[in-house]
Amino acid sequence: MFPRFTDGEPSRLTGYAGNPLDRHSELRDAADFRPAAIVTPGARFLVIGTGEAVLSRDAGRLDLGLDRAAAATLEADEERAVFLGNTPDGTPWLALPSPATLDSLSGTGFERIDARALLTGGELDEASLGILAQARAVLDWHDRHGFCARCGTATLAAASGWRRECPNCGAQHFPRTDPVAIMLVVHGENCLLGRQPRFAAGMYSCLAGFIEPGETIEDAVRREVREESGIAVGRVAYHASQPWPFPSSLMIGCYGEATSEAITVDELELEDCRWFPRAEVASMLDGTHPDGLRAAGIGAIARRLIEDWCRAV
Amino acid sequence: MFPRFTDGEPSRLTGYAGNPLDRHSELRDAADFRPAAIVTPGARFLVIGTGEAVLSRDAGRLDLGLDRAAAATLEADEERAVFLGNTPDGTPWLALPSPATLDSLSGTGFERIDARALLTGGELDEASLGILAQARAVLDWHDRHGFCARCGTATLAAASGWRRECPNCGAQHFPRTDPVAIMLVVHGENCLLGRQPRFAAGMYSCLAGFIEPGETIEDAVRREVREESGIAVGRVAYHASQPWPFPSSLMIGCYGEATSEAITVDELELEDCRWFPRAEVASMLDGTHPDGLRAAGIGAIARRLIEDWCRAV
Repeated sequence: MFPRFTDGEPSRLTGYAGNPLDRHSELRDAADFRPAAIVTPGARFLVIGTGEAVLSRDAGRLDLGLDRAAAATLEADEERAVFLGNTPDGTPWLALPSPATLDSLSGTGFERIDARALLTGGELDEASLGILAQARAVLDWHDRHGFCARCGTATLAAASGWRRECPNCGAQHFPRTDPVAIMLVVHGENCLLGRQPRFAAGMYSCLAGFIEPGETIEDAVRREVREESGIAVGRVAYHASQPWPFPSSLMIGCYGEATSEAITVDELELEDCRWFPRAEVASMLDGTHPDGLRAAGIGAIARRLIEDWCRAV
Repeated sequence: MFPRFTDGEPSRLTGYAGNPLDRHSELRDAADFRPAAIVTPGARFLVIGTGEAVLSRDAGRLDLGLDRAAAATLEADEERAVFLGNTPDGTPWLALPSPATLDSLSGTGFERIDARALLTGGELDEASLGILAQARAVLDWHDRHGFCARCGTATLAAASGWRRECPNCGAQHFPRTDPVAIMLVVHGENCLLGRQPRFAAGMYSCLAGFIEPGETIEDAVRREVREESGIAVGRVAYHASQPWPFPSSLMIGCYGEATSEAITVDELELEDCRWFPRAEVASMLDGTHPDGLRAAGIGAIARRLIEDWCRAV
């Protein structure tokens, strides 16, 4: 077991893993906790309206954390604030949904930028990306879960934004996080990469799929690979994880050892799937592939899996 | 990465990990797939009514899989059947909710047994336990998710029981699986175990908690341990996972290396939490502890983590 410890933690090198906030989940239930955070001098408000974050720009640098007065000008409703956590210096961060339109921002000095574009765009530092990923996932959960799945009644937010409660049947609902198995399957000096039709031209990546009720992580890896590629996988080793707020996944990255070679592509899921030699993958990572092929996007855990395998001796 | 492979797979040794079914998720969407499975000669039906499984007993041995005629006598509604998967010989298994009451079973030769008691009771083999865990999790999800969380409308089952669809807003809903981080924190020759008030007398186990939006597995381990015990954790290593159908968790078992020693117990969560030397833990596992203390229940992933640490050199 313990020999599995390595010198570094691969999960820390995945996108959105740099969130520095202390969530203080043990304090969320106190009725006066969120109100006190909102009025704390210096509190920061991350405002998101219909998928777009509202940011200020100071000397070219984007800033996610508005002050309370600025959030108020965006008609953000403090009753819907979610307490995200405190920075190490004790500054509270809160997420706020906003009805602000592009028109209403005219002349305010604020910019609206699609949250997904921000999360994939490289303009924010790791700490800001981590906070934005947390905020987007939980606000999106509120947006899509306003009614009780058990009885259909409109629910109410509680616990500083981390629970919804049904006033009819009493059910409590918590933010949903969907575990996804994502895997690099290897066979000697080759690894298995696939292409979904929606990928950019030339892009290949790891196979992946949702872990289902009644499965271990390892069994889900073997099932997904068998379904998508026809390849049989024996041993599976966990490598790294990543929060993926599109909308609410926990990516669980593994290596799998193939015990067969012949590929049968599931054409509903993939438009191509094949074995790539390690040297070719290296050229796909560093942008020197003769046909312009590439391997996984920056920030994606698939790239972590592929790079770490490619560099392994 | 690859040196992390061990000779065995710890997840295979956790409870409910022995499910032998091929789920054929790629076939579920075909309209004629589930109906064809239902009428396949030899198809097996796992019937669960209000939390209790209906079983037959043959020469003292409990059998989860009823035939179609037997399921019909229990008024199980085939329209609500969930396709679980095929055994390696091609026999389909389906899960069926039943309104059958204890009275209606009188004289039928069937027994009703609480599903949780079966899952923890040791009367079933690993394959049956795995199938029951899958069936219970997905039927329970249908029970608790009959309405659209987005708009409150009653939803309809689809995809052979693996999806619910909203006839009003078109939202698709999938079975929920909640990732939980469960961890054995170690410090030299000691490990950290806690007691929840609901535990049986003398029982101690690993700390655990739900992984939240925006967290890696490793960050969730560090947060939970800090919140519940005040202990700081540095390195984290994944060890094993386990499906835990009470009601819908994926237990993700890790080791964590403590970087502090002084414990501050979160008294809302735990009634005790302390360091135990390895030799004492060994006596808690084998039932020879002088004060009758015990460590985690059989089948729980906590026991896997504790045993494997205890045996490590």
